Amino acid sequence: MNHEREEKHIISTLVENHFGVLARVSGLLSSRGFNIDSLAVAETTDPDTSRMTIVTRGDERIIEQIIKQLYRLVDVIKVVDLAECPHVERELALIKIAADQEQRTAILQIVDVFRARTVDFSPQSITVEVTGDSRKIGAMTAMLEPFGIMEVARTGVVALSRELDGTSIHNAEKAA
Amino acid sequence: MNHEREEKHIISTLVENHFGVLARVSGLLSSRGFNIDSLAVAETTDPDTSRMTIVTRGDERIIEQIIKQLYRLVDVIKVVDLAECPHVERELALIKIAADQEQRTAILQIVDVFRARTVDFSPQSITVEVTGDSRKIGAMTAMLEPFGIMEVARTGVVALSRELDGTSIHNAEKAA
Repeated sequence: MNHEREEKHIISTLVENHFGVLARVSGLLSSRGFNIDSLAVAETTDPDTSRMTIVTRGDERIIEQIIKQLYRLVDVIKVVDLAECPHVERELALIKIAADQEQRTAILQIVDVFRARTVDFSPQSITVEVTGDSRKIGAMTAMLEPFGIMEVARTGVVALSRELDGTSIHNAEKAA
Repeated sequence: MNHEREEKHIISTLVENHFGVLARVSGLLSSRGFNIDSLAVAETTDPDTSRMTIVTRGDERIIEQIIKQLYRLVDVIKVVDLAECPHVERELALIKIAADQEQRTAILQIVDVFRARTVDFSPQSITVEVTGDSRKIGAMTAMLEPFGIMEVARTGVVALSRELDGTSIHNAEKAA
């Protein structure tokens, strides 16, 4: 992981499904000069609420400010910075790779090692689905690059807190 | 699938990574009265561009308008409605389910059938990762509901066009 001055934050925001809520949240972040690395928003099991997962970089103090300001929006129910605590994070990427018959075996080996799945297949391409944290997606993309990546669609990170604390075998890495 | 008057559209938008681009796109959609079912945005392999996948509902004419208006934003490079053509669509969900020892077996059976993966485990809960189209995620969520869903984080849909056309065995379902 890249430990620059600006640490990665995963801001998980539960919002009411009011019309225009995404425009209000992203407007607030952009008016405060916040760069968004990725954002994913979709309904929860309650059709009245959605969960928005925002990955951003910034120092502690600025993140605290942003959380305070998010709470001022009436649509916002709850905000947590999951990077602060043990959490599971996952992202999905669809990657379309140029692949003629000769290259197929090498590509399918990579798919296998990364526990990815082939989701489309044509005489000149393979499309795969891979899930993991951003580093794993980055590593797989780097392995596939020499074959020729035609298109990529990534979801951005979603995350949930872990139930066990720092004593867990799955202890989440905290930025140093 | 629910074939109401308003059909589902998957608007895949390639944008320049300019500051505030998400706020501009979501502002445009909300000012035109567009309801967003889900949105996922993350970098492509080119660090100067991101792909934004927006799922929305509306009739053909309104979607055409929105595509035209998106093209007027200087940040927008390309817009495609993937629901119009054969495509692969995938979404990832993290689901945390209440689970004591007695319920574990039944839950892990469901995880197995849906080809999901267990990503966290505690004496009182199981967190799973599942990928698929929205119907599959919905079906798995429905199966897990009786156990008690504690939290869900969904990425929203991402999609890529298929290389083969209507003659493919993977022929995408088109709305009737």
